[in-house]
Amino acid sequence: MTWTAPSPAIIDDILSQTRFDANGLISAIAQDPDGTILMLAWMNADALRETLETGRVCYWSRSREKLWRKGETSGQQQQLLEARLDCDMDAALFIIRQTGVACHTGRRSCFYHGVTPDGLQDTMQPEIDPAVLYGR
Amino acid sequence: MTWTAPSPAIIDDILSQTRFDANGLISAIAQDPDGTILMLAWMNADALRETLETGRVCYWSRSREKLWRKGETSGQQQQLLEARLDCDMDAALFIIRQTGVACHTGRRSCFYHGVTPDGLQDTMQPEIDPAVLYGR
Repeated sequence: MTWTAPSPAIIDDILSQTRFDANGLISAIAQDPDGTILMLAWMNADALRETLETGRVCYWSRSREKLWRKGETSGQQQQLLEARLDCDMDAALFIIRQTGVACHTGRRSCFYHGVTPDGLQDTMQPEIDPAVLYGR
Repeated sequence: MTWTAPSPAIIDDILSQTRFDANGLISAIAQDPDGTILMLAWMNADALRETLETGRVCYWSRSREKLWRKGETSGQQQQLLEARLDCDMDAALFIIRQTGVACHTGRRSCFYHGVTPDGLQDTMQPEIDPAVLYGR
């Protein structure tokens, strides 16, 4: 399964139907083909356009206020397999092939704080040392 | 698998670690145990507390500006099985048992607008007539 990019005109049409919020963003979920939810981040129109055009996932970093080409620093890229928008067109789901791990902590998924009767507990161990990922 | 609620003190502790945004919200993903992502919505602190206390998923409706006890009108409730927060504590993942369908269009999941080379296409058919769900 590989990504076949729609034409620029089709992407324009999809973007025109997308309901970006007051900050110009939609929520974007990245999911492994096995069903594991890897992360939730944000896209503005440029990030969504780049993702659909290139088949490589690009988010909008709210903290850095710039396009965040996932894996640009860490090498942990995301190749797009499928993209879907939700009923009210303000959230997107991306089925992706993750190189390495999705989380900056070195864990496979960002959703590792499990709620238990005793409070939050780590449900996942890091697979890679973040110092290796970010060259610190 | 059923939900065991943490004590009120533990829930207070979890809420104190949760990073609600400027509008007091976090993103909340609902996922079926089979991996299917059913919907993405929002929770404020009260909605997250009620969800963790009762084991019945309660969102915050941004359009109606009130607690949204999922299924209150439609009967399509969500029973909590597992809850997880992400690395930066501003998004939550809920593994839930969905009664009926998650989407107000009568589809199982809200993420049914598939991006194809020809534009957006419905990838899912409604299972229930919304008129039946909402008594119109």
